[in-house]
Amino acid sequence: MRILLLNPNTTAAVTDLLHAAGSRVASPGTELVPATASRGVPYIATRAEAQIGGAIALEMLAEAGPGIDAAIIAAFGDPGLFGARELFEFPVVGLAEAAMLTACMVGRRFSIVTFAGALAPWYEECVAMHGLTARCAGIRTLDGAFESISEVQAEKEELLVALANRAVERDNADVVILSGAPLAGLAAKVRDRIPVPVIDPVAAAVRQAETLAVLNPRKAVAGTFRRPDPKPTLGLPEPLAAVIEHRSPKEGAR
Amino acid sequence: MRILLLNPNTTAAVTDLLHAAGSRVASPGTELVPATASRGVPYIATRAEAQIGGAIALEMLAEAGPGIDAAIIAAFGDPGLFGARELFEFPVVGLAEAAMLTACMVGRRFSIVTFAGALAPWYEECVAMHGLTARCAGIRTLDGAFESISEVQAEKEELLVALANRAVERDNADVVILSGAPLAGLAAKVRDRIPVPVIDPVAAAVRQAETLAVLNPRKAVAGTFRRPDPKPTLGLPEPLAAVIEHRSPKEGAR
Amino acid sequence: MRILLLNPNTTAAVTDLLHAAGSRVASPGTELVPATASRGVPYIATRAEAQIGGAIALEMLAEAGPGIDAAIIAAFGDPGLFGARELFEFPVVGLAEAAMLTACMVGRRFSIVTFAGALAPWYEECVAMHGLTARCAGIRTLDGAFESISEVQAEKEELLVALANRAVERDNADVVILSGAPLAGLAAKVRDRIPVPVIDPVAAAVRQAETLAVLNPRKAVAGTFRRPDPKPTLGLPEPLAAVIEHRSPKEGAR
Amino acid sequence: MRILLLNPNTTAAVTDLLHAAGSRVASPGTELVPATASRGVPYIATRAEAQIGGAIALEMLAEAGPGIDAAIIAAFGDPGLFGARELFEFPVVGLAEAAMLTACMVGRRFSIVTFAGALAPWYEECVAMHGLTARCAGIRTLDGAFESISEVQAEKEELLVALANRAVERDNADVVILSGAPLAGLAAKVRDRIPVPVIDPVAAAVRQAETLAVLNPRKAVAGTFRRPDPKPTLGLPEPLAAVIEHRSPKEGAR
Amino acid sequence: MRILLLNPNTTAAVTDLLHAAGSRVASPGTELVPATASRGVPYIATRAEAQIGGAIALEMLAEAGPGIDAAIIAAFGDPGLFGARELFEFPVVGLAEAAMLTACMVGRRFSIVTFAGALAPWYEECVAMHGLTARCAGIRTLDGAFESISEVQAEKEELLVALANRAVERDNADVVILSGAPLAGLAAKVRDRIPVPVIDPVAAAVRQAETLAVLNPRKAVAGTFRRPDPKPTLGLPEPLAAVIEHRSPKEGAR
Amino acid sequence: MRILLLNPNTTAAVTDLLHAAGSRVASPGTELVPATASRGVPYIATRAEAQIGGAIALEMLAEAGPGIDAAIIAAFGDPGLFGARELFEFPVVGLAEAAMLTACMVGRRFSIVTFAGALAPWYEECVAMHGLTARCAGIRTLDGAFESISEVQAEKEELLVALANRAVERDNADVVILSGAPLAGLAAKVRDRIPVPVIDPVAAAVRQAETLAVLNPRKAVAGTFRRPDPKPTLGLPEPLAAVIEHRSPKEGAR
Repeated sequence: MRILLLNPNTTAAVTDLLHAAGSRVASPGTELVPATASRGVPYIATRAEAQIGGAIALEMLAEAGPGIDAAIIAAFGDPGLFGARELFEFPVVGLAEAAMLTACMVGRRFSIVTFAGALAPWYEECVAMHGLTARCAGIRTLDGAFESISEVQAEKEELLVALANRAVERDNADVVILSGAPLAGLAAKVRDRIPVPVIDPVAAAVRQAETLAVLNPRKAVAGTFRRPDPKPTLGLPEPLAAVIEHRSPKEGAR
Repeated sequence: MRILLLNPNTTAAVTDLLHAAGSRVASPGTELVPATASRGVPYIATRAEAQIGGAIALEMLAEAGPGIDAAIIAAFGDPGLFGARELFEFPVVGLAEAAMLTACMVGRRFSIVTFAGALAPWYEECVAMHGLTARCAGIRTLDGAFESISEVQAEKEELLVALANRAVERDNADVVILSGAPLAGLAAKVRDRIPVPVIDPVAAAVRQAETLAVLNPRKAVAGTFRRPDPKPTLGLPEPLAAVIEHRSPKEGAR
Repeated sequence: MRILLLNPNTTAAVTDLLHAAGSRVASPGTELVPATASRGVPYIATRAEAQIGGAIALEMLAEAGPGIDAAIIAAFGDPGLFGARELFEFPVVGLAEAAMLTACMVGRRFSIVTFAGALAPWYEECVAMHGLTARCAGIRTLDGAFESISEVQAEKEELLVALANRAVERDNADVVILSGAPLAGLAAKVRDRIPVPVIDPVAAAVRQAETLAVLNPRKAVAGTFRRPDPKPTLGLPEPLAAVIEHRSPKEGAR
Repeated sequence: MRILLLNPNTTAAVTDLLHAAGSRVASPGTELVPATASRGVPYIATRAEAQIGGAIALEMLAEAGPGIDAAIIAAFGDPGLFGARELFEFPVVGLAEAAMLTACMVGRRFSIVTFAGALAPWYEECVAMHGLTARCAGIRTLDGAFESISEVQAEKEELLVALANRAVERDNADVVILSGAPLAGLAAKVRDRIPVPVIDPVAAAVRQAETLAVLNPRKAVAGTFRRPDPKPTLGLPEPLAAVIEHRSPKEGAR
Repeated sequence: MRILLLNPNTTAAVTDLLHAAGSRVASPGTELVPATASRGVPYIATRAEAQIGGAIALEMLAEAGPGIDAAIIAAFGDPGLFGARELFEFPVVGLAEAAMLTACMVGRRFSIVTFAGALAPWYEECVAMHGLTARCAGIRTLDGAFESISEVQAEKEELLVALANRAVERDNADVVILSGAPLAGLAAKVRDRIPVPVIDPVAAAVRQAETLAVLNPRKAVAGTFRRPDPKPTLGLPEPLAAVIEHRSPKEGAR
Repeated sequence: MRILLLNPNTTAAVTDLLHAAGSRVASPGTELVPATASRGVPYIATRAEAQIGGAIALEMLAEAGPGIDAAIIAAFGDPGLFGARELFEFPVVGLAEAAMLTACMVGRRFSIVTFAGALAPWYEECVAMHGLTARCAGIRTLDGAFESISEVQAEKEELLVALANRAVERDNADVVILSGAPLAGLAAKVRDRIPVPVIDPVAAAVRQAETLAVLNPRKAVAGTFRRPDPKPTLGLPEPLAAVIEHRSPKEGAR
């Protein structure tokens, strides 16, 4: 089984973190195929960046071509997720979606704990987009700046554990989600220092992508995720244009 | 990995259906351990029966003893689920919960399609209990009586497919859940006659139970699913009494 | 008029408290018929215990036999309430339900004030189950342990009054509900030390049970509380089995 | 016990209907004190009329003077209810409020069935005002004109019964409320022709007003229903002006 | 274009404030026609006063007669608004409504900041009435008394700015509404001392009333704001009686 | 006052329609500056296209440069709106947002009526994104194909009027929004054939953009729409890259 692990950010070191953490829970026989955005921003943190990054995610999915059994959009906030679910035959799961739905099975309310305050509004809209606001105990974020996006989890480990504990005490969280992508792998490391279950979004996403690939639901031909009718495009990257126009991509074009 | 497949109904033939359908999607190395209630009703269909059946589910979980990596409460409606999540160390997942959360990853709104109108109020409260009302396009049920609970899926196949199609057309469902337990296995059979993805609850539950077992979140010692403090009991079955009283079950007692 | 005052806990001293507080507001001619659970736990405080206690409540209602005009399930949290409303001809009201609906007539938002933190998750789900979350200003609980469940109201009186005052000040409660059953009678005692109306759940429940008995609504033969069709049972206590199977209980059986 | 039965409409014949239906369920010793508005409209049916009629209800309550143990604002829609609850020492209950809260104890969802389509928007806002939208299965209204407001219940009896049955079948109502004031007494008459419990708003209101009088909650001195501080007024009827200004009404003035 | 600026309070000095602040944003050619209530209270602050003041607003609108292109009910809380929208041909906008809808275009969540705690319950119900609860970050009010309603904005300026800043910091407000009518004009003055956009309700209302007058939507003849059928009245002020009865007002009457 | 009328679709003829309809309600002195997307799709109709089109809208806003007083994102569905509100100093309003908020001032519930079923899921998520679901009576769409996107309003006029009437009759809409961009100008034409007010989104948007420009709220430096900190970018169009990086665009670059 081949699962595309799509990082819509341009930071390859974060893709590596995601790949490592995802690999630890992948089933034997599952191949995680990493991809890093070649344009965009180092890490998506705002609604504007998610708008741009979501469009880039669609381009990357179109490029991934055949042979993919499922895909993960590996930015907490799930940029481009619903559009992807319209356009492509294979199942696509979002990092936030997988983490939150998995968290629902171990707690009544989850808290999202992350490293930068700038992420909160985007995360909050993501929770609402998935209809899970009533299951969310809160979003807690660290205050200060950080050195490097790919090393923020080491730099802030103590503070994040303390913040997760605060989410349990003050917000009555039953379960904590350590997000987003740059914290991949941290949950396993700090598991015993937080008194409730801790979810690692990429670990959840890998398992959920596998589940969708195994259950193998048909591609909808009705409902809101049926593939849209073909439509002409102008100036879009060739692979995405081909998907929207319902045709094979042109040779050599991009 | 050993997953308890707990049927809180007294109909062993339904347990067989669940086991067969679950086995088709279980990972290599996963053992599904079936259990059928020794008291209760042939199939839970009302709130009163769910109240009783949920208590029986707790008794069965207490009996299952050590060596279980995860458990499935295999009645759509999830009787006893939250109580189970308080009492036991291993993860427990409900049939409805697993089906609905999985459905959320392939559609914006799911419809629940089932074979008996009596189930609707209970199912509706189950959807609400999980905070997923906004993700539910509706619950559609067949009208008439049926011959046998363990063969209802064959008897009503055509009608259920038609009903699922109606849910897509009229309720704008993106995905259909064929429930409850007596329909285990039907989704795979009718997959191509319904224009949207179809979820088989027991298949979803087996994969989600595996996911929880692999992710292996710690047992909460805080939050609403921490294990309750020990408390004396009177007249409860011995294994459940022992769990509530925080002691080893007495030899030979039941 | 005979009103069954059903305590699904095994503590007879709490039944006495309920009976005394309920008797103070009962109309002339109303007989409160107390009943204490013969199996279960001393006081229900968690979802697991409510699951078990609700099934026991159904057994007790089935035993109560003819001659009852209405029944009160006298545990705040209303274990087994909706199942009871399906099975029985006479009206059944829950302690929490009666208290909350009565509170709605004297305030926009009520606070629930109680003596043990363990109760909060169960109470919160009870509020949601009744669709009254928007009318609830909050649930406030004392922290520490207590000596005896039947004397907790005397032991904690000062702390509970202080907590009720805090609910008014911080949560903007218009009305306070002092719950659950072990606090029966406390509201009248502390009435003048809390600046908003205080509801005693059992007092409210007695009046509401009388109201239902006097209004005498017909038993539903349609809708979600119609009596379920007869169904075989296995291993259930005889009176409850008889109710579910739509037959007279067997002589001498239990 | 003296309960003011305040009809904010100018039609005395409707007051008579209310008084008759209310008297049938009043406890021995309860005196229902009827009052009919001396200005306003024959029957309130719109938001504009409710705005005016609610102000008139406040005037009437101010006039009612001492010796009242509780009051009922006897127009479904509850004009002026929350304002009344601020201003007066005695408990005040609304016809819609009492009917809906009582209905909640016999069903999961109630339908409101009434005789004129013009009432629906006002009723709908009333349901929302009480936070009970999720408990309401729908509002169904007859279409045509009617002869006389005080005889509409006889004229439309068959149609209303048919409409109530439709609410049960199509909207899955567990309980039906026959409203508003001009239908007082009809519920008892048609009880056996509707397959679910039927609530008569004035019967419910009389019992609930008695309940509040017996429970005798203190007047709030905090929260949103504390009495507002005194304030000067200009051109208001003397008794209401006196209440708002916190003074005794002037002799002979109105 | 003539826009009626209707102050349902009796304080003419507040009408002056409203007129001045509204005039600063009115388009060339817009005439703001001020009107002050001749009966009622100096400033509406409670539900009881809003009930009375809303009825007075309807009387004032009926008196305003022909030649009005749109009207503003210039009390935050919008007393009488929906009734007005039923009765009159010209568009009517509320101060709170205009402020909140305008705020929605510059922020995800608005905070309402005002000078007196007594206003909060009424404001909160107004937010709910408009279906905007999810867009409201909170309502913050000053504590102490004030000298004069028409000079409260000068007296409390520093405290209100501090309170607005607190709403931004603690409630995460994206935008602040300085309300109600007595604060007209303050927003412009303190604009640079609050780090998010600040809305002046009367400024918003004047622009929204202009917008409605220019868009010139037809008066509904269907839906919930169609004009109610004529109905007899008793004892109402002549202009309002004439509107309700669908006739010309009698000469010389009032 | 210069208002950018940004069409994120590539169909210039639709921009012309928007410009014509918008000009009819613009104030004297307002200049509408039209812009048509140079890449993308002819008309956005799905979530995938909105994801892409929203990113293009951000690029276009970045290009628009100084001298703009406000901007309209003129596709119903508001692609890129919240991102735009983060990035730019001038106010930005969405076509759907402006139409819905304006509709709220003339009705309790609006219906959205449009020409293609493919639009419904996107529109529905747009309504939810603005928190206005409770104000929306429904979304009704025509079924069949259409000839040309820029002439669809003429081709389907009769059908759209019939559909709007159905929305009023069946969904109880108080007001109808004729959307999206290709229907610009239709509302004025069919005004008298629909019994409730009809809103033209671009007309509403022009007036609301003017309102924001006149009220001139400060750019947030706190809250969720404060401008994000500068961040490096890779491969984005030069003007947008410059905005995100907080620098002047490079000469000659794009």
